[in-house]
Amino acid sequence: MRAPRGLPPASAPMSTEWFRRRFLHRVPSWGRGPSEALGWRAGLEDAVGSPEPPACGRAGPASPLPYRRPKFLRVVAPAPRPHPYPDPQSRPRPVYSPAPDRPLPWNAGYAEVINAEKSEFNEDQAACGHLSIKHRELGDDEDQEWMILCQEEYVTGCYWALFDGHGGPAAAVMASNILHGCLRAKLEDIVEGILAPQPPMHLSGCRICPSDPLFVEEKGIQAQDLVIGAIEKAFQECDTVIGQKMTATGQSGGCTALAVLYLEGKLYVANAGDSRAILVQRKGTRALSSEFTPETERRRIQHLAFTHPRLLANEFTRLEFPRRLRSEDLGQKVLFRDYNMNGWGYKQVEKSDLKYPLVHGQGKQARLLGTLAVSRGLGDHHLKVLDSDIHIKPFLLSIPEVTVIDLEQQEPEEEDVIIMATDGLWDVLANEQVAQLTHTFLQNNRHDPNRFSELAKLLIHRTQGREEGTWQQSSVGDVLVSYDDVSVFVIPLYHKKQKSRDS
Amino acid sequence: MRAPRGLPPASAPMSTEWFRRRFLHRVPSWGRGPSEALGWRAGLEDAVGSPEPPACGRAGPASPLPYRRPKFLRVVAPAPRPHPYPDPQSRPRPVYSPAPDRPLPWNAGYAEVINAEKSEFNEDQAACGHLSIKHRELGDDEDQEWMILCQEEYVTGCYWALFDGHGGPAAAVMASNILHGCLRAKLEDIVEGILAPQPPMHLSGCRICPSDPLFVEEKGIQAQDLVIGAIEKAFQECDTVIGQKMTATGQSGGCTALAVLYLEGKLYVANAGDSRAILVQRKGTRALSSEFTPETERRRIQHLAFTHPRLLANEFTRLEFPRRLRSEDLGQKVLFRDYNMNGWGYKQVEKSDLKYPLVHGQGKQARLLGTLAVSRGLGDHHLKVLDSDIHIKPFLLSIPEVTVIDLEQQEPEEEDVIIMATDGLWDVLANEQVAQLTHTFLQNNRHDPNRFSELAKLLIHRTQGREEGTWQQSSVGDVLVSYDDVSVFVIPLYHKKQKSRDS
Repeated sequence: MRAPRGLPPASAPMSTEWFRRRFLHRVPSWGRGPSEALGWRAGLEDAVGSPEPPACGRAGPASPLPYRRPKFLRVVAPAPRPHPYPDPQSRPRPVYSPAPDRPLPWNAGYAEVINAEKSEFNEDQAACGHLSIKHRELGDDEDQEWMILCQEEYVTGCYWALFDGHGGPAAAVMASNILHGCLRAKLEDIVEGILAPQPPMHLSGCRICPSDPLFVEEKGIQAQDLVIGAIEKAFQECDTVIGQKMTATGQSGGCTALAVLYLEGKLYVANAGDSRAILVQRKGTRALSSEFTPETERRRIQHLAFTHPRLLANEFTRLEFPRRLRSEDLGQKVLFRDYNMNGWGYKQVEKSDLKYPLVHGQGKQARLLGTLAVSRGLGDHHLKVLDSDIHIKPFLLSIPEVTVIDLEQQEPEEEDVIIMATDGLWDVLANEQVAQLTHTFLQNNRHDPNRFSELAKLLIHRTQGREEGTWQQSSVGDVLVSYDDVSVFVIPLYHKKQKSRDS
Repeated sequence: MRAPRGLPPASAPMSTEWFRRRFLHRVPSWGRGPSEALGWRAGLEDAVGSPEPPACGRAGPASPLPYRRPKFLRVVAPAPRPHPYPDPQSRPRPVYSPAPDRPLPWNAGYAEVINAEKSEFNEDQAACGHLSIKHRELGDDEDQEWMILCQEEYVTGCYWALFDGHGGPAAAVMASNILHGCLRAKLEDIVEGILAPQPPMHLSGCRICPSDPLFVEEKGIQAQDLVIGAIEKAFQECDTVIGQKMTATGQSGGCTALAVLYLEGKLYVANAGDSRAILVQRKGTRALSSEFTPETERRRIQHLAFTHPRLLANEFTRLEFPRRLRSEDLGQKVLFRDYNMNGWGYKQVEKSDLKYPLVHGQGKQARLLGTLAVSRGLGDHHLKVLDSDIHIKPFLLSIPEVTVIDLEQQEPEEEDVIIMATDGLWDVLANEQVAQLTHTFLQNNRHDPNRFSELAKLLIHRTQGREEGTWQQSSVGDVLVSYDDVSVFVIPLYHKKQKSRDS
């Protein structure tokens, strides 16, 4: 975390130099760039080369968490290097995948890369595994001895998650260690409700009003709504724990989180940030998540500044303009948008409009308070606008949006998969391109047991300008090349169906 | 407006009697029921029978606005009465349509009815007509004499709108008189921006920064965004004017607003409330609006109560429960939702949770503060919770959601129409049923010049249990019958295309 360096007095005009220093020179490295956090580096050096670095809990309360790759990837050698690349500086980085003898849940595929022009540290993180949720079956009559008498069972689920860090990999590493534990705890809190034929009005199962089941039915409350509620709570708790750990260890940074959870016949896709999951089926492709950025959440962010103007410390303007205004614009009617507008209007420029806009830029350049490129995620508890005491965190949400797929109704076919990836993939490939590559690859590789990881690798190669085993220079043709870390999970859905039938 | 009658002290426990009086006895008639406003009745008697009642402005600042039907309907006799109905009390009310010799813009169809079990006054209102937007074309060099030199032109558009009143028809009548004027004024404010090849950064057309057009292009700002912004502003201004007129004339009530605007090749569908517009085409049907009710806007409403708890005056709970909680629920973990949850969770019940919920009930019974069934619209400036000083207005939005259809790209075919109607229609007919009735009717009535009004009538007859010219009893079969006012516009799109080609 950078120490605040003092602001120009609120009433003083902000100089171009001040704006340049705050918003132009260093900003590009903040939003999604390489780590500069000192606390992080200290931990990093301790851990590099350690095949099993200590887990967060074991590192002690004051030790920064070490940098490391996902557990399922740790004994993996990099994929073979490509043929000599013309310019060693821009040589594509190696793509990593799990060892074929260590299959992931549902035989899912995975691959990751640190792309060109980045530091040697990957800010993405991944996690996956099985979840066991304890279930204490209570009798109709709860009594003092239920702790002894109750039958303890387990409800099992599966979990895959991607975390895309910024301001260093610390938050992403923490989240990959913590989120599944938060999920399990929150699901255990409500597991009786999930397993009942209908979620009971009272978790204890007692019925205070005879028509309670009717009220629940009228509201349309189903077991999946309890799971969604638990996921929402788990993300919030994970964020709180990350904040505590960051404070205790003097680390900084944040991350996005995209998690897929399988439980009781349904898949839950929870997203907070700008990663993306899509469902690729023979019959069509559909997005399972939407991105949360300063642009997509402009209205929520502007509304918060409207209700709590002090959060801007008189330094930013809540209004959106096509560009930052100058003194020459004073008195003119210029294009603007406020929190309550989807359309654009014209506003006569006043002096206060010359401040830097709360949400500024567009597309990948859009920034919240000139600083951050995402508006949801975990961490960033201590992040401030450069040279100021303005906190970013109040504008961020840790709560994900959750989409549900009912696999029992879905009837997945053989090559139906979910592709989930960090934004580095989607920056250069559209959903339909990914779907097309997926169809072609899976049809041509029906008998390769490792085909889902191979597909993940293929998708990543495409972000490097690599075409079907050969390398292309990024400047050749119209192939887009990603300069970001990229991580991809490919989750086959048919596998689950087969497994259910077999078991 | 009802005078506040005094609350029980905030700290005192709320008696069952108090709850019954406030929420049970009178509530059903509040949300969408017949008018009880005294100010309204006074005006009503003055105007009944007058073929051209005075317009709002002419009535003087202190005179309540008289009750009246839409202008285009005033010289119309009711449709012929049906055959004698078994029970005169439940005899279907007559359906009104414009006279065939007074066509509406685009030869649109219209019909309206006061359905069974309602008062003799229709709380729905409608308006339509042509809009002329003045355009002062400025030269490149604006000078002192532009007022004399400028060329004054008109941009013309069309407008159809439905207003569904509650707490009396006053707000709906006012809105039907005012909204199109507000729209015209707001469009005139920005018409130069609409007519330019690209909306200019500065409305004056001057270019302060050479790359201003690039900034506007990068933001993707188009002329339609200016129109959307103008519509949003117009609804807000209309709401402000209604508030002023209500205060001046001692009237009360509110209304929803659904407006369709045609301008420069595009249709804009703006909705604030629970009316609905759908596009019915041979190739499919799609909703052009979504409904704004306490249920659909639960999170926004709860969030406002979270940031401004004083609005609940310690009398309501922000949380949603499947039913209102009782003292027997204390200490139990019950199903609940807060503003930041899409899913449901369990919460241990505390004393404060026993208050009446801010949003309560489901479907057509859902109420905001136990009072209102819609969460967006115009008016309601003085509406308070019965027996209290708690205002409803802070929770309401007057801003519509706007959907755009580009008719140039749409290539409308012969029987493509927009059906817009108040909620009374959609309560008993699904979109697909309306589309099916539309297809069948238009295919069978190709040469009737009045077929769009005939279709509007047919749709209304269906809400009365009438089947193709015969009457059914509401209790017979599974035909749903509406007890609400219903108004329907049918706007043909092919007509516009033909007209453009002809002209």
